[in-house]
Amino acid sequence: MSENALLKIAHVGIAVWDLDEALETWQGKLGATVSEVCTLEDRGLKIAFLPVGESLVELLAPLHEKSEISRFLEKRGPGVHHLCFGVADIQERLNTYKERGLRVLMERPEIGAEGDPVAFLHPKSTSGVLVELLQETQG
Amino acid sequence: MSENALLKIAHVGIAVWDLDEALETWQGKLGATVSEVCTLEDRGLKIAFLPVGESLVELLAPLHEKSEISRFLEKRGPGVHHLCFGVADIQERLNTYKERGLRVLMERPEIGAEGDPVAFLHPKSTSGVLVELLQETQG
Repeated sequence: MSENALLKIAHVGIAVWDLDEALETWQGKLGATVSEVCTLEDRGLKIAFLPVGESLVELLAPLHEKSEISRFLEKRGPGVHHLCFGVADIQERLNTYKERGLRVLMERPEIGAEGDPVAFLHPKSTSGVLVELLQETQG
Repeated sequence: MSENALLKIAHVGIAVWDLDEALETWQGKLGATVSEVCTLEDRGLKIAFLPVGESLVELLAPLHEKSEISRFLEKRGPGVHHLCFGVADIQERLNTYKERGLRVLMERPEIGAEGDPVAFLHPKSTSGVLVELLQETQG
């Protein structure tokens, strides 16, 4: 059983209340460097990406109280929101994971914040971790 | 302000109630591969390491109810427990972070589960994330 299906940690999504404050911490104090900041109006999010090795730290802040992460923030406070793993063939993975009894939140991938196909698995079936899959582009 | 002080995500620590069950999920279903399992009696932990790209997923299970992660599990349930970043000079980082007002949980690094010097920052000063620093060995 050596599939090595998870190619890398594509990013770690961290929910924060205030993006400027979080950037002061992650860039100003911890010393990571922001590569991009974008606003996703339809998801109610402002996102900063900070490359760390082959991965990204993704800071997610709500634009309003109906954002995708508002419920998480209200319930648990700031912290790690999800883990995203790069995979070689996201549709094949979704099919395989569904067959194996993992709770797949979507039958087909959608386009994520970085412009690549993504899909989510329900944390109930993955040790309490909201797992995102990201289609790795062929290098 | 381009320090790039965080060299990589060394590992993501995930707290789980039962290691065998978690391995069935992460190895048997998600398709990651275990490289090592070890028992740390003094910390009350059984740990499995699963390499994912340049990082590790570290599954942490309690040996008893006084383990390092028991309180976390009782309070929040299974999920991401901490993020560990590789740094070039851990003592210099601890000094710098303390000067910048981050809450450093130890003045000097200790030896971690993987045998390298590690130190922790309090989640109150790092967006609710328990941040571990790991001294990267020179390649």
